[in-house]
Amino acid sequence: MGVASTKIKGNRVAVVVSAMGGQTDHLLELAAEITDNPPGREQDALVATGEQVCAALMAITLESLGHRAKSMMGLHLPLITDHVHTRARITDLQTENISKILDEDIIPVVTGFQGVTEDGSISTLGRGGSDTTAVALAAALKADCCEIYTDVDGVYTADPGICPRARHINRISYQEMLELAGLGAKVLHSRSVELAQKFQVPLVVKSSFGGDRHTWIVNEEDVMENSVIKGVTLERNVSKISLLRVPDRPGIAHQILSPLAEAAINVDMIIQNASIDGYTDFTFTIPTTDLSKAKKLVEKVAADIDALDMLAANNIVKVSAVGIGIKTNPGVAARMFKSLSAENINIEMISTSEYRISCVIEEKYGELAVRAVHNAFGLDNAVNRED
Amino acid sequence: MGVASTKIKGNRVAVVVSAMGGQTDHLLELAAEITDNPPGREQDALVATGEQVCAALMAITLESLGHRAKSMMGLHLPLITDHVHTRARITDLQTENISKILDEDIIPVVTGFQGVTEDGSISTLGRGGSDTTAVALAAALKADCCEIYTDVDGVYTADPGICPRARHINRISYQEMLELAGLGAKVLHSRSVELAQKFQVPLVVKSSFGGDRHTWIVNEEDVMENSVIKGVTLERNVSKISLLRVPDRPGIAHQILSPLAEAAINVDMIIQNASIDGYTDFTFTIPTTDLSKAKKLVEKVAADIDALDMLAANNIVKVSAVGIGIKTNPGVAARMFKSLSAENINIEMISTSEYRISCVIEEKYGELAVRAVHNAFGLDNAVNRED
Repeated sequence: MGVASTKIKGNRVAVVVSAMGGQTDHLLELAAEITDNPPGREQDALVATGEQVCAALMAITLESLGHRAKSMMGLHLPLITDHVHTRARITDLQTENISKILDEDIIPVVTGFQGVTEDGSISTLGRGGSDTTAVALAAALKADCCEIYTDVDGVYTADPGICPRARHINRISYQEMLELAGLGAKVLHSRSVELAQKFQVPLVVKSSFGGDRHTWIVNEEDVMENSVIKGVTLERNVSKISLLRVPDRPGIAHQILSPLAEAAINVDMIIQNASIDGYTDFTFTIPTTDLSKAKKLVEKVAADIDALDMLAANNIVKVSAVGIGIKTNPGVAARMFKSLSAENINIEMISTSEYRISCVIEEKYGELAVRAVHNAFGLDNAVNRED
Repeated sequence: MGVASTKIKGNRVAVVVSAMGGQTDHLLELAAEITDNPPGREQDALVATGEQVCAALMAITLESLGHRAKSMMGLHLPLITDHVHTRARITDLQTENISKILDEDIIPVVTGFQGVTEDGSISTLGRGGSDTTAVALAAALKADCCEIYTDVDGVYTADPGICPRARHINRISYQEMLELAGLGAKVLHSRSVELAQKFQVPLVVKSSFGGDRHTWIVNEEDVMENSVIKGVTLERNVSKISLLRVPDRPGIAHQILSPLAEAAINVDMIIQNASIDGYTDFTFTIPTTDLSKAKKLVEKVAADIDALDMLAANNIVKVSAVGIGIKTNPGVAARMFKSLSAENINIEMISTSEYRISCVIEEKYGELAVRAVHNAFGLDNAVNRED
């Protein structure tokens, strides 16, 4: 076990656990049998037990291996959060109690995902909460690093299920990881990576099932292998809405998009065609999970602004190339477009940032596009041509 | 639901919950998969989640019915215990936090069975812990009464499974209940009844499945229907050990029994025959669950004191008649013995107290004996002849 071996090497180790797979969903189902809308405070008290069970079992395991261990709940640290139940933010993390345990050469086993509000109610941090707890604790304890044990042995240049020639990445920068994670690499929630970057906590992603391979997530300047492109991702939860023949006047974008912002619908890419006769077409992408809600909101605006028509489509995906090298290497975008063109894949929308080039294409070409771009940037090979 | 209807009648209500049936065992099995001997502190942290789940689900249920409710863990009260994990004793119960919630017209839903040690670790109270929590909280809050919801609708004059003509009891004294509970009535753990008696908390046992029948457990002077015998019980977990031809000298009983006391084996009935030639036979009963451990301890003593032989038997049971009337009604014991004799049941050992007459008999006659005694004291009838 990673924890025990790290401890045996003479390190002071604190452990953060998440719930067993499926347990959180099981608990939520129990609540759903009672009501569709449980109070957040009670839902948090309910699901927090999942991590408590794991913390106790982990402490029992460590003790049975001859170590001394003590489980701790979020409220024992305490890890203080705001009152936004089910997706609370950490406001303070105190280390006096856990430091005492560490000083006694005991391994503290802390429940991830959960904290406590100022008035003593159990709260949970929402998505990525366990990783975020681990990073926050590592930062507060000024730990050498934070090891994240997950079901994969690190980050790959692409999803190996889509791109069989994907390579394992040894080191990646926080910023690249954020672009990859936000686009669906699913290894780490972006929230924990952001926190690690903010507090300069080196992260290591390892497999819970053992093995030597792992991925370091560190500062940009600590990434030696500066390939132009670090990875290629495919995001499937993408839909687009187009408004045709919209009057091209100041404030029109705000008028269309503000109802979506109020409804907490995240608009990603936006394209506005060149104006013809004072009219333009306005297209944007949103998560497919928000499409039906968004359509209703935009239909109203379309009537208000007298647009010719509204079109919606969910048969699209977003392919992105991510890497530090993009901002310093002109021609990266061109190479990506060329590789897609060579496969006769039509690009519907484009967006670029310092670390990322994204193309929206038809869904049916998604996996082919990933393989094409992956190969175009030499990621298929054992030695990266860009080095 | 009992809680909601009591609340609707204008009462201030606090709820104490236990875990769902089987959940505690399930959690203990998870620990047993790791080690036979989990640390008590971690075992407590583990099993305490069972009550937390129920408290949250109960609060969610009450909220869905239009009430306001808040779940609380033992540590939120706090209910302070000693450090004897897995069978902690309550040392203090503070009511400031729960009173605040009650004052806001919110129903507090408290986890039974669990507390917190002075250093903040979660502890559990062991057997009967949830009922004990409820009674302790009722006492601390000076509640009008403590309703115990269980799988039966109260206490019966005998186990209806053994004695089909058993009658439901409307009111019973703490002391009678203690004698019944200690003898296996299984409705309430004696610990909670003792606490209720100590703090004069009236208890009501009701069925979780609804229905109007219930049993009040109150002070002796508040029990109107003073039948001589309130109930008849059968205890199966009984074994006896006899030492034959033991030298009849001062201190011999102590010499035989003190190793058992040190091993926390509970000796119940003791019989020492009249001395003949300076020798006697010494017989006592213990729980069958402790028989093999006890035999080993007593074998050593038997050799030390040069006893002729040691005999052990576990094919016996204890039948008891319980009632306030025993101490004031001479002839009750005689009537019980007569009813057993009429069925040709041989009495092996007898013990009596103010509230109880117990006979040890052969196991095969146990159920017959209960029915015989039950009938002899008129408990079979709708109207009790002793009234």
